[in-house]
Order: sequence, then C-alpha cells, then structure tokens
Amino acid sequence: MEKGQLLYEGKAKRIYATNDDSIVWVEYKDSATAFNGEKKAEITGKGRLNNEITSLLFSKLNELGISSHFIKKLSNTEQLIKRVQIIPLETVVRNVVAGSLSKRTGLPEGKELSQPIVEFYFKNDALGDPLFTEDHILELNLATKEQIITLKHKALQVNEALTELFNELGILLVDFKLEFGIDGDGQILLADEISPDTCRLWDAQTNEKLDKDVFRRSLGSLTDAYEKILAKLGGAAHV
Amino acid sequence: MEKGQLLYEGKAKRIYATNDDSIVWVEYKDSATAFNGEKKAEITGKGRLNNEITSLLFSKLNELGISSHFIKKLSNTEQLIKRVQIIPLETVVRNVVAGSLSKRTGLPEGKELSQPIVEFYFKNDALGDPLFTEDHILELNLATKEQIITLKHKALQVNEALTELFNELGILLVDFKLEFGIDGDGQILLADEISPDTCRLWDAQTNEKLDKDVFRRSLGSLTDAYEKILAKLGGAAHV
Repeated sequence: MEKGQLLYEGKAKRIYATNDDSIVWVEYKDSATAFNGEKKAEITGKGRLNNEITSLLFSKLNELGISSHFIKKLSNTEQLIKRVQIIPLETVVRNVVAGSLSKRTGLPEGKELSQPIVEFYFKNDALGDPLFTEDHILELNLATKEQIITLKHKALQVNEALTELFNELGILLVDFKLEFGIDGDGQILLADEISPDTCRLWDAQTNEKLDKDVFRRSLGSLTDAYEKILAKLGGAAHV
Repeated sequence: MEKGQLLYEGKAKRIYATNDDSIVWVEYKDSATAFNGEKKAEITGKGRLNNEITSLLFSKLNELGISSHFIKKLSNTEQLIKRVQIIPLETVVRNVVAGSLSKRTGLPEGKELSQPIVEFYFKNDALGDPLFTEDHILELNLATKEQIITLKHKALQVNEALTELFNELGILLVDFKLEFGIDGDGQILLADEISPDTCRLWDAQTNEKLDKDVFRRSLGSLTDAYEKILAKLGGAAHV
C-alpha cells in the first residue's frame, strides 16, 4: 500500500490517498482543540495515544461483530481505513450527565441517566455544532429517516459493547461521540475515532477524569490520563 | 363567577382564582418582553390586543373541533379559562425558516420548509428555554412518550387550521409556539395564548412583520401591527 496525496486535514487528523481507491491512510496529529477551536495546543504524544487507543477499540468492536472503517494500524500514529463519505452528524451517546447535557437540562454532572440518551449534532464549525432533532436532519437532507434509525441502533450497540469493556477495566463510560460514513456499497459504517478525545471516561473508583476534559478544564497532564487508558486497554505504554 | 386571589403572575398575564375550582380568570398585561426577559417595555393596548386576538383564535379553533382551555372573553383584557396544569414545554411549529431555526441550521429566513417542523423547548428561564429532544423530555419526566405524540399531533392540527385561516386573510403563518396543560380529567388541552406574541405572522404580499419581531427587532409600532391582525380577524379595532 502506497501513501498518496493529502486529501483532507482536520483538527486532529490528516487523510491521505492510497493506490487503492477504496482505502485511505490516516495520520493522527498532536493537536488538541476544544470549544469549537477556541482553545488549542500541541501535545506531544497525543496523536500516538489516540491512534493506539482507537486501533485497539475498533479491533475489539470488530471481534464483537461491530464493523467499522478500520482496517489496520500502520505505525504509532497511522492507520489504514476504508474510504467513506462522512455523514455530517456527531452521534452522541450518554450514560451519565456531563458537559452540555448538564448545561442544557440543569441535571447535575455525574447523575446516572435512567436510560442511554442518543443526540445528534450537526457537524458545522460555523454554526457551533448545534443540537439537531430528527426534523432538522431531514430538512437539511443529512440523513434519511431509515438512516437515522440505523445510526441510533448502531450507536446503542457500540455503547453496550464499550460500556462493558470499560466497566471491566474500572472505567465509567460517561458519554462519547461517534461519526458514521457511507462506503462505496452505500452501507453505513462506524468511522472517525474512538479515543479519550471523543469519550468521557472516569475512573470508576475516584471519578478522576481520563479524557479530553483534562485539557478542556485544565486539570493536569492530558497524556498522563490517556496513557492510563491505553495501559488499561492492554496497549504498549510509552517508555 | 367571582374573581378571587392572584394565583400566578407571568411576564404577560395574571391568573386569578374564581369561586369554581376548575376555572381561573386571566388578565392580559401590557408588558412586552423578549430575549428571555432581557428586553422589556410597557406597551399600552398590548394586553387588550392579545386578549382579543387569542379569544378570537381559540373560538375559531373550537368551531373547527380543536378544543382548548378557553371558556369565554370577559372584557377587553380578561378571559375565563379552564384550570390546567401546564406542561413545561413550549411546542413550536414552523412552516417557514425564521429566528432560532435560521441561527441553528444556517437556512435563510423566509425559506419554506419541505414539511412543518415541530420542536420542543423546555420552559425554564434560568436555562434559557433550551431545545429538547424526546430523550431529554423523557429523562426529565416532563411528558410521557404517548403525551409527546399527542402534543405533536395536536400542534400539527392547530397548524393546519391556523395556516388556512391566516392564508385567507393574506397572512403567512411562519411559526408559532403553543403550550398545553392537563385538566382535572387528565386530558391534554391546548392552553396559554395564540397571538402575535406567540406567532410569526408576515403580510403575504409585502412580508411585513405583524408580530412580536416588531418589538424584538425594533421595527416600528407593535400595537399598529397587532391592530392589523385583529382587524383582519374581524375583531373590533380600537377607536
């Protein structure tokens, strides 16, 4: 597989073409951003950590029958993935109140939800990634009614698998954001990444935050937190 | 029917008890507020106009088989209504893009929607009346799944009736906000008011705004606009 030209550069990743039209080459960057890009930093090791963690999680989901765009890890910071057309929605699953759900509802952070909540946000930096209802999604033709049902169903499947996986490691999966894409056959495929950048992960004993809130809220070393997650997942810690 | 003690004072209305437990006495105030109370004014005649317009619209809906809490108009500024427990949701129906829908989606104001959109906002000043999805409503026990379906159904029924009514008067019903309550028998009843305070109404020829946006956006005389609506509805204009 040969690395071709740069196709796209996002806040956390670069995507390159390969000599296979259906496959792209991802490089995880060391950039950290929060609050719609208002807070920014370069954090050495972050790209490696997110690549390692995402590769482990997508592999484990695959073993459980939940397929994704992930093909294989290439290096510390690189993956091969299937080329998909990303649906411009952030699908958020929540098990415990935190962040914007607390602000929106007034419910206290840390309150367990009576059942998982699935939310959709329009991926649009200029609009600040607003919450969308099904009606908004349909009006903007971001997905069909059937696709919305599929997204919810897949998101809840991922939630069940990840909740159990993290629970066994003594970590509470508070909430997480997924992205989905459509492959060449028109199938909806789990895409993007699953990492402490996209999940809220709390130590089940101490409630210590082991995710991007460490950066958002300036709570300490982001890489220390991410290394803890990687180590618990059984990945090679950096030495 | 005797007017009893003040039960509740809101931004636009005062509610009094009567000698019948199942009936309350409403007095429309001359206060105008916008942006969650940030913009305020006293506008002489506004209470009368909203009372007259609401009374006419609830009467017309009733003739069309859509019942509400409305019993009868008592005076220029007063009504008798059935006592209900208000469900703390603002049910918004939209036919044309305006206001917060434009800000949320980036769609231009004035664009006709492919089909009416129903949105729910949590009635909570401290939280700024946030948009809620069905999951949020269920988590906060604001309404059951069945009640949400009923609210949507009734809101769309009202939309059909009002759209036709205003259309015949040369007015475009852009969007509106409804509130519902639960009466003593546990039935969901249309409540609150339907007026230029709670609807966006544009002159179908000129697109002139004939609603609270005149106040929100400082576009001229609010009472002139509301008088136009009342006159078109066939109510007695103020002389």
